[in-house]
Amino acid sequence: MLELWGDHLSGNCYKVEMLFHFLDIPYKFIAVDTKKKETQSLSFLAHNPNGKIPLVLLENGNSLWESNAILHYFAEGTSFLPTDSFEKAKVLQWQFFEQYSHEPYIAVARYIQFYLGLPENRKEEYESKKTGGRKALAVMESHLSKYAYFVGKQMSIADISLYAYTHVAEEGGFSLAEYPAIQAWIKRIETTPGYTKMQRN
Amino acid sequence: MLELWGDHLSGNCYKVEMLFHFLDIPYKFIAVDTKKKETQSLSFLAHNPNGKIPLVLLENGNSLWESNAILHYFAEGTSFLPTDSFEKAKVLQWQFFEQYSHEPYIAVARYIQFYLGLPENRKEEYESKKTGGRKALAVMESHLSKYAYFVGKQMSIADISLYAYTHVAEEGGFSLAEYPAIQAWIKRIETTPGYTKMQRN
Repeated sequence: MLELWGDHLSGNCYKVEMLFHFLDIPYKFIAVDTKKKETQSLSFLAHNPNGKIPLVLLENGNSLWESNAILHYFAEGTSFLPTDSFEKAKVLQWQFFEQYSHEPYIAVARYIQFYLGLPENRKEEYESKKTGGRKALAVMESHLSKYAYFVGKQMSIADISLYAYTHVAEEGGFSLAEYPAIQAWIKRIETTPGYTKMQRN
Repeated sequence: MLELWGDHLSGNCYKVEMLFHFLDIPYKFIAVDTKKKETQSLSFLAHNPNGKIPLVLLENGNSLWESNAILHYFAEGTSFLPTDSFEKAKVLQWQFFEQYSHEPYIAVARYIQFYLGLPENRKEEYESKKTGGRKALAVMESHLSKYAYFVGKQMSIADISLYAYTHVAEEGGFSLAEYPAIQAWIKRIETTPGYTKMQRN
């Protein structure tokens, strides 16, 4: 059976769980504890030499890692990935934006606050994430004030990628009150049939 | 005519130039000076609200940003992007690895050393990039000691993405001497017909 190795509270893992639920794909969840450094074990590194979750193991034994690459693999041929070349590239554009300009600020601030409990020795780093995080939210707000979704007229994996850490941005100290278009988009996603909440461990 | 807005010395822009040369795609290069904050001008932000190069403007006026998304758009249907779903996902896996686990260390260290001349107030940040950069190079070395390319048996855009900043890693203070498989792969890419060097402004 298809295996997803991850942590329910990680937005990157949750992206994959969201898509699996939307598409009704059965999978076995294998819990990996990053705080216990389980991603650095030899058995984990044999599947992902970069030592990060999520990781999927296909039924044929092949492994695939990087959340957004996993989403593409399973979304191909479904309504979650457009077939038009330009729209497909636009999905990727927003996913690379997510990994470079959004996640390193919003997810990392959340990690420091929510996972680690905002320890004194990481407060400066935590504060340094504010500007970049707000910039990413402003780019999203500007787009969503004109369009219902990131690409095309329906939800795609670009929305899933950006939703994962945005909807819990407050756990990283970002207030969503000033972003009404983002709030409306979050509601739109959460009322879509097949939507599943982020599990709390 | 297709326009590429960028800076020849940026690895992210060079990726796109490399592919355009391999595929013999004509384009007009529009130089953008990030140090003069030209990416933050209203005319630039109208095309890319995230204010980053590279950016392409298609002949129909549509814009596309994020280097790896641009590569996918132009590589589709060519030998630089596999058609098999799993191999295509593997290309993305390595490109997301590049943007999250490689570029933020190797390209940023290079930016501080090569563009800014290693100013005193960024030395601590520069030093902090060493561990992550070496880890990314080790992951690449391990893969390339078993395979000639990142995905499949020929060069793909995964190789272009990883080559761009790796081949100038020494400008960020990383020595490639300890990575023989990476060096052999660099040579393999540089002797492929259609290869073009990074232009020096």
